[in-house]
Amino acid sequence: KTTKKLPTLLAARKWVRVNKQGEANVAQADKHLRHHLQQALGVQLRDLRILDPALATSYPSAILVREKALVVNLEHIKCVISTSSVYVLNADDENVIAFIEELQRRLVLVAAVQAPVLDGISGQTNGHLDLQKPEALHPHDEMPFELRVLEIALDVVCSQMERQTGDLEAAAHPALDGLTQRVTTQNLERVRRIKNRMVRLTTKVETIREVLEKFLDDDSDMKDMNLTAKEEEAAERASNLSLQRQSYGLDRPSFKRKSGGAEQLPDGSELGPVDTDSDSDSEVDEVEMVLEAYFMQLDNTYNKLQTLCEYIDDTEDYINIELDSQRNQLIRIDLLLTAATFCASIISVVTGIFGMNLNNTHEDSYTAFIATSAITSGGAVVVFISIVMYCRHKKLLSFV
Amino acid sequence: KTTKKLPTLLAARKWVRVNKQGEANVAQADKHLRHHLQQALGVQLRDLRILDPALATSYPSAILVREKALVVNLEHIKCVISTSSVYVLNADDENVIAFIEELQRRLVLVAAVQAPVLDGISGQTNGHLDLQKPEALHPHDEMPFELRVLEIALDVVCSQMERQTGDLEAAAHPALDGLTQRVTTQNLERVRRIKNRMVRLTTKVETIREVLEKFLDDDSDMKDMNLTAKEEEAAERASNLSLQRQSYGLDRPSFKRKSGGAEQLPDGSELGPVDTDSDSDSEVDEVEMVLEAYFMQLDNTYNKLQTLCEYIDDTEDYINIELDSQRNQLIRIDLLLTAATFCASIISVVTGIFGMNLNNTHEDSYTAFIATSAITSGGAVVVFISIVMYCRHKKLLSFV
Amino acid sequence: KTTKKLPTLLAARKWVRVNKQGEANVAQADKHLRHHLQQALGVQLRDLRILDPALATSYPSAILVREKALVVNLEHIKCVISTSSVYVLNADDENVIAFIEELQRRLVLVAAVQAPVLDGISGQTNGHLDLQKPEALHPHDEMPFELRVLEIALDVVCSQMERQTGDLEAAAHPALDGLTQRVTTQNLERVRRIKNRMVRLTTKVETIREVLEKFLDDDSDMKDMNLTAKEEEAAERASNLSLQRQSYGLDRPSFKRKSGGAEQLPDGSELGPVDTDSDSDSEVDEVEMVLEAYFMQLDNTYNKLQTLCEYIDDTEDYINIELDSQRNQLIRIDLLLTAATFCASIISVVTGIFGMNLNNTHEDSYTAFIATSAITSGGAVVVFISIVMYCRHKKLLSFV
Amino acid sequence: KTTKKLPTLLAARKWVRVNKQGEANVAQADKHLRHHLQQALGVQLRDLRILDPALATSYPSAILVREKALVVNLEHIKCVISTSSVYVLNADDENVIAFIEELQRRLVLVAAVQAPVLDGISGQTNGHLDLQKPEALHPHDEMPFELRVLEIALDVVCSQMERQTGDLEAAAHPALDGLTQRVTTQNLERVRRIKNRMVRLTTKVETIREVLEKFLDDDSDMKDMNLTAKEEEAAERASNLSLQRQSYGLDRPSFKRKSGGAEQLPDGSELGPVDTDSDSDSEVDEVEMVLEAYFMQLDNTYNKLQTLCEYIDDTEDYINIELDSQRNQLIRIDLLLTAATFCASIISVVTGIFGMNLNNTHEDSYTAFIATSAITSGGAVVVFISIVMYCRHKKLLSFV
Amino acid sequence: KTTKKLPTLLAARKWVRVNKQGEANVAQADKHLRHHLQQALGVQLRDLRILDPALATSYPSAILVREKALVVNLEHIKCVISTSSVYVLNADDENVIAFIEELQRRLVLVAAVQAPVLDGISGQTNGHLDLQKPEALHPHDEMPFELRVLEIALDVVCSQMERQTGDLEAAAHPALDGLTQRVTTQNLERVRRIKNRMVRLTTKVETIREVLEKFLDDDSDMKDMNLTAKEEEAAERASNLSLQRQSYGLDRPSFKRKSGGAEQLPDGSELGPVDTDSDSDSEVDEVEMVLEAYFMQLDNTYNKLQTLCEYIDDTEDYINIELDSQRNQLIRIDLLLTAATFCASIISVVTGIFGMNLNNTHEDSYTAFIATSAITSGGAVVVFISIVMYCRHKKLLSFV
Repeated sequence: KTTKKLPTLLAARKWVRVNKQGEANVAQADKHLRHHLQQALGVQLRDLRILDPALATSYPSAILVREKALVVNLEHIKCVISTSSVYVLNADDENVIAFIEELQRRLVLVAAVQAPVLDGISGQTNGHLDLQKPEALHPHDEMPFELRVLEIALDVVCSQMERQTGDLEAAAHPALDGLTQRVTTQNLERVRRIKNRMVRLTTKVETIREVLEKFLDDDSDMKDMNLTAKEEEAAERASNLSLQRQSYGLDRPSFKRKSGGAEQLPDGSELGPVDTDSDSDSEVDEVEMVLEAYFMQLDNTYNKLQTLCEYIDDTEDYINIELDSQRNQLIRIDLLLTAATFCASIISVVTGIFGMNLNNTHEDSYTAFIATSAITSGGAVVVFISIVMYCRHKKLLSFV
Repeated sequence: KTTKKLPTLLAARKWVRVNKQGEANVAQADKHLRHHLQQALGVQLRDLRILDPALATSYPSAILVREKALVVNLEHIKCVISTSSVYVLNADDENVIAFIEELQRRLVLVAAVQAPVLDGISGQTNGHLDLQKPEALHPHDEMPFELRVLEIALDVVCSQMERQTGDLEAAAHPALDGLTQRVTTQNLERVRRIKNRMVRLTTKVETIREVLEKFLDDDSDMKDMNLTAKEEEAAERASNLSLQRQSYGLDRPSFKRKSGGAEQLPDGSELGPVDTDSDSDSEVDEVEMVLEAYFMQLDNTYNKLQTLCEYIDDTEDYINIELDSQRNQLIRIDLLLTAATFCASIISVVTGIFGMNLNNTHEDSYTAFIATSAITSGGAVVVFISIVMYCRHKKLLSFV
Repeated sequence: KTTKKLPTLLAARKWVRVNKQGEANVAQADKHLRHHLQQALGVQLRDLRILDPALATSYPSAILVREKALVVNLEHIKCVISTSSVYVLNADDENVIAFIEELQRRLVLVAAVQAPVLDGISGQTNGHLDLQKPEALHPHDEMPFELRVLEIALDVVCSQMERQTGDLEAAAHPALDGLTQRVTTQNLERVRRIKNRMVRLTTKVETIREVLEKFLDDDSDMKDMNLTAKEEEAAERASNLSLQRQSYGLDRPSFKRKSGGAEQLPDGSELGPVDTDSDSDSEVDEVEMVLEAYFMQLDNTYNKLQTLCEYIDDTEDYINIELDSQRNQLIRIDLLLTAATFCASIISVVTGIFGMNLNNTHEDSYTAFIATSAITSGGAVVVFISIVMYCRHKKLLSFV
Repeated sequence: KTTKKLPTLLAARKWVRVNKQGEANVAQADKHLRHHLQQALGVQLRDLRILDPALATSYPSAILVREKALVVNLEHIKCVISTSSVYVLNADDENVIAFIEELQRRLVLVAAVQAPVLDGISGQTNGHLDLQKPEALHPHDEMPFELRVLEIALDVVCSQMERQTGDLEAAAHPALDGLTQRVTTQNLERVRRIKNRMVRLTTKVETIREVLEKFLDDDSDMKDMNLTAKEEEAAERASNLSLQRQSYGLDRPSFKRKSGGAEQLPDGSELGPVDTDSDSDSEVDEVEMVLEAYFMQLDNTYNKLQTLCEYIDDTEDYINIELDSQRNQLIRIDLLLTAATFCASIISVVTGIFGMNLNNTHEDSYTAFIATSAITSGGAVVVFISIVMYCRHKKLLSFV
Repeated sequence: KTTKKLPTLLAARKWVRVNKQGEANVAQADKHLRHHLQQALGVQLRDLRILDPALATSYPSAILVREKALVVNLEHIKCVISTSSVYVLNADDENVIAFIEELQRRLVLVAAVQAPVLDGISGQTNGHLDLQKPEALHPHDEMPFELRVLEIALDVVCSQMERQTGDLEAAAHPALDGLTQRVTTQNLERVRRIKNRMVRLTTKVETIREVLEKFLDDDSDMKDMNLTAKEEEAAERASNLSLQRQSYGLDRPSFKRKSGGAEQLPDGSELGPVDTDSDSDSEVDEVEMVLEAYFMQLDNTYNKLQTLCEYIDDTEDYINIELDSQRNQLIRIDLLLTAATFCASIISVVTGIFGMNLNNTHEDSYTAFIATSAITSGGAVVVFISIVMYCRHKKLLSFV
């Protein structure tokens, strides 16, 4: 369906392949790579589309589990992880280069540690469930390659999210304090921009958090993620089946059942304790512990963003009440001044009346001058005091 | 029950039938079509009602899985998909014609690709689970017809949703910037109309998203969606049952059980690895991958709409605070002017008193003129300054 | 416990019994009816309480599944449905009479259609799952009576809800437009009343929607709803058990198990393909399709109400911003007028000073008159322009 | 751990024990009671803590199912219910006394009814599932004692909640109407107090509702609640096991499994239809019907509170818009008055100018007097009309 | 991966080890401790990271269940609990010292009580499920060590949360009352700080509550938490398996299945009532009762915080309406004063006109003086009354 669009995509983008030993080489983005991903790893063109940076805005973070590969799209890190190597897309990006370097550094470290372990007898078992399977020496005592790469990718992305959240918090508090101090258009614009960043960051964190949560909620999905274990199990099962067919005679019915997604093989009790079940548990545990740790980190980042969001909202509420309260106080003083002006205008009216060029019959009376001035002024003061008293009575001036 | 209403519906609307080769022909909306849908495909009149454009406002987007058909109602695309052909309703609509053309284009393309594949030996297996079933050459290596049509319908609708969201975003930002610049009735009305469009679009996207999520959450529903696989399985089961009845003697109990909705057939281990279970997994996987891709796209569209919604809300909050803050500043200046007017009126009062046609005994004194003017003006200025100082003390004028 | 209260209830209310042929007759609300409901249908007094119109405010919509009856309380429709007849309560109500008439009309129609079908060989199978059970001719090819009645009740109630929502929408838009045009107490009161109606209607729709959703989420509950199928199955099981006891010798263990609530009977494979499982699927499907259709309708009604609710909220936000913005403009003009008044008062002050009956030494100078007038007026204009410039500088008058 | 704290608690509080016949006697709160609760009923000290009225604020409503007792803490009703008697705590409280009296009244009633039933042959079977177990005459045809007591407790508490909600509604409507009429501090305070009561009541109702919902969601929890059935089953199982051990030879494996929490016993089909499964269903049904009825009542009460809450919120929104709208109208009139005052001050200015004691050269001209007066007044009116027209043009005065 | 970071962490922090007898000694934070935690207890470096106080802000409260240890991070309490001892981190902190002391006090108490019990024959069975296992004398009649420590940790943390909530409530009410009385910047700041504390405390409580809820929702997780039982079961299983292998001949198939996470062993009924299932139930019950009690306490604390939050929100709404209402009243009085001032200015205008030094032809008329004064004043009063009447008519002054 999208056959015409994708080859150009694959050709245009730079892929880097990193193997178990941490060696990186630029992968040729030709038909062979595409064929390899599709045929050998079970990654469909449809899956590769989510990695296309040209469509980056269309696809949120996601981890897809395919037959023999994990397709990982975590923010800027876009890669396809198989059990033996990882293909990283868009390798020109600065962040991606940093990720590849970190990947190489850690893989070299692990390879160095593992070498002697695999030489001699593994002195360092992982301690998990070894009670139940003391006789089996599992070759995947160390975390499988695909989980290790996934962990590094998660680590890089989660740390970045946490750093960005920290930056945001560091920017938000002075901006909010500034706004609380003085509501200006610039301060408002600044807070608004921070809020915008916060919303976008929250969406990102939430998306990755939900991706991890979904895996953590479903044991069978986590088990599928452990590609190495899946491969081993398939091999084991194949050999088991042939064994079984030999040992089970025609008169023994075999029971296969599946409950809740956990697959269970028929196990003849006389064939030794194959005990696939607890094996499967340990496989899931490996994945669970990786995802759980980063889920917790993201959850914490998410909580921080939520707290910041509530802090901004509270500050806005606070500013609203503050502005409202200030306005009331301004209006209160305005009211007093209006009242005073009104009282002055009462005097003006009286003086105006006596100022008219009409015969008021007291033109020469100084007593009248004094009396009029005094009475009017006194009256005005009384009126003013009455207004203030009335307002106080109505509890409208209690604050001044 | 609704027998009288429906025939008219079917008659009045134009149906177009498109087959596997992409050939389209107008279907006669008569009794035969209705009978065919009902009897052969298991689509009830009740199901057809959701496609009725006359009732379009009553029925939100939905995908119904019936015995041998999918009833799809995704926005303007209303069709019934069987394993061999698709009946598209309301074919006069411009959008629907575009959908039919796209459908034909892609089906012709696939038919062309598939022809040689089916001729020779399939060189391109789908790579899924072929480890577990290397001996079985499945004829449905390519995606079944009904899923292909469903994918095209989802693609068309999801792209449309995404385009509409993009348009909305493109319209929202200048409108909001305009509103931020200048709160006018026109700008408000513009934002309000955008908000309305957004709410309606969000509801649409949410509905389709929930439809897909519901299917993704239930493996057995997804399996039912794979009509081709269901048919094949039924055929296989039929032949299996007869085989079983032959091989199982009377003294062998057969176990049939169902756990969690996944049906499992008794399989005598000696009868060859029928392995319905992993088959069923691959069937579900096919459906899951189609739905998952479009669910992710819709989820992203939904996230964008949510972000836009939060952006609009934040802008409104911003405008509210901005308006409040401006109002306070206006009132502040108003307060100063009122104070100044009051001070002027103090002078007016004094001048008014001396302007009265009453004997003030200093009519001829220039000193009195100067003194009165100066003292009163000075007094007024002092009063004004006192008021400003008081307000500053109360932190009411810090901004000016 | 409630023995004393209920007989009066049953006596006081009018019950109408409608049978399969659509014949209605008033049921005697005496001990016999009560005894019949309780003993034969498994409906407890406790269940009848939810139908009591006197307590109508206490009980929201509900559908209870009892041993041999469905107790339905959907808004005004309160009835007890058994497999052969339906008892409708409160038959004096106008709406209920309409429901009973609709019920009769449809039942007569179905009875007429079914009669010939049952005479000859059923030419019209329901097409469901007939692949898996070609040999079994089920007598309930048509929908069982209780589901048909339930469907009619749901249809009546859902249509009413939809109509009420439509009415509400039709009333809301002019009211909101009116409010947008002019915020008056009457318009506010009108919108408020609409909002109230909306909240109440939303609660009703939500309750019924949740009732249906709960059933749709639980297959075993839906299966219980199919009373006819339950009866048949019980009969079949009884006969099966006796058969089994005969055929199973002492040396054959029987397996009974239950997973996820779906009950499964032991079926000896040699006893013919009783295949209770797929049967049970088809029983559930019948119920599911009925509920699903009305759930979708209610969901749509609910979405409409939600959209309306958001529309009202947006309008309120809009009005709030509009009012705020208008207020700012009013205050802005007020500010200008206050500034102008202040400037006028500056002139008044000067003229007042020269108007005092004191010796200003220029009483006879026309030049002084012109100069004073001109300078003062000019000064006032300069002050006014300064104030306006200051406000413009502070972006407070950009709108005027 | 809490051994020191609890004896004092037990000693200090008055316990009343009510038995099946409704006889109440004060229980000695000594070591024996404590020992009895702990050893015979499986109630731990930890469980008793939730009943401690001294800690009442620490523990919300809860129903704990213990080995042989239900620990019930529903608002003021705190009791421990065993299969034969109920221990009610805090028996000095007025509400609790009312509860105990109600309890006695009903228990006596039931005891009276049951006596003859148990004498003769039970003519009144409960009608549940009797199809499937016609041969078994169950001794618990009537609801077990513990469920009866639980029902009475729930009835008392739910009725109280409903009554309080009714009271609140009755108080809220006049308060809100008062506030709508006139926003005063007293009215605001009144509404606020009602809101507070509502929040507290909602929390209470929600807690009990959630407790019931949790039980209704989990069949195995409900089954555990039926203590009588649990006891009987244990007894039955014990006898069954011995039977089984006899009948099952060494060559017959027994199957015990548990899926989804429902326990299922191995039942040899030849040992008669013990059919524990449907039994277990009927046990759960008894509990479910009791809880369901009160869940519905609480759900309705909760809905009422939610509706009231939304009503209060809507009223607040309404008041906000009303206040805003009124304010705009006040400011509008204020604006007109300010404009008029400004126009008056224009005239004052002109009259002031001509009022100056300076030579205006027209002192004796009556024409000048008329002309000045007329022109100035006319000008002022023109200015006023212009201002009004401008505001009308800006749609700022359309309302007046 | 983090190998370089962690040893320094372990070295830098003080660990205290407390054993079953309550004896505490400082653990050497060297390679041995790390090795012990990792190898013997199955605690990975990754798990220890969540305890690192340096990263405390990165990790919210959590309880991790590892192979043989619980990793507990509850606020300030950070410890690793095994079946025989507990390692407490960061032992210099004051709160942590208090926790260790409490831990020692209680452990000593229990040790003292348990000693005689273990000496003689356990006279005090836990009463749980002893009906079903009367023959088995379980050695873990008392709560296992790890659960006891977990309970103490939960007790300490939950009590602290409750105390902090109480403090917050005690601080919030006067602050809110103060704000209601008088909206000042200080009061606003005070409420804002309380709100901030509340948000942070709510997040903390919510996190721990969710941790407990998650365990309570998953029986298998709770079972894993009972480390002692897990150990015993493993031992038992081991011995069982060998027994089984002996007793089961080649002709007996063994069934192993797992449904819903609960593991179930094959149990030959003739091998004695091992009855792992009810055992497993009792193990889960022990954990459940511990978690349930503290979940209830936290839930109550959470409810209190929610109620407080709603109380603060309501108060803010109240203050907003109060401020708005006051403002309207202020503006109303302002309006009256403006109206009065306008009326005064009408008189001023008239008096001004007659005050002009122009010939008004009535200079000597006292009648004119009286008439002008009276008519103008009368007119002004009429205008004022008209304005007031108009406002009253418009319901704008109904409140004054």
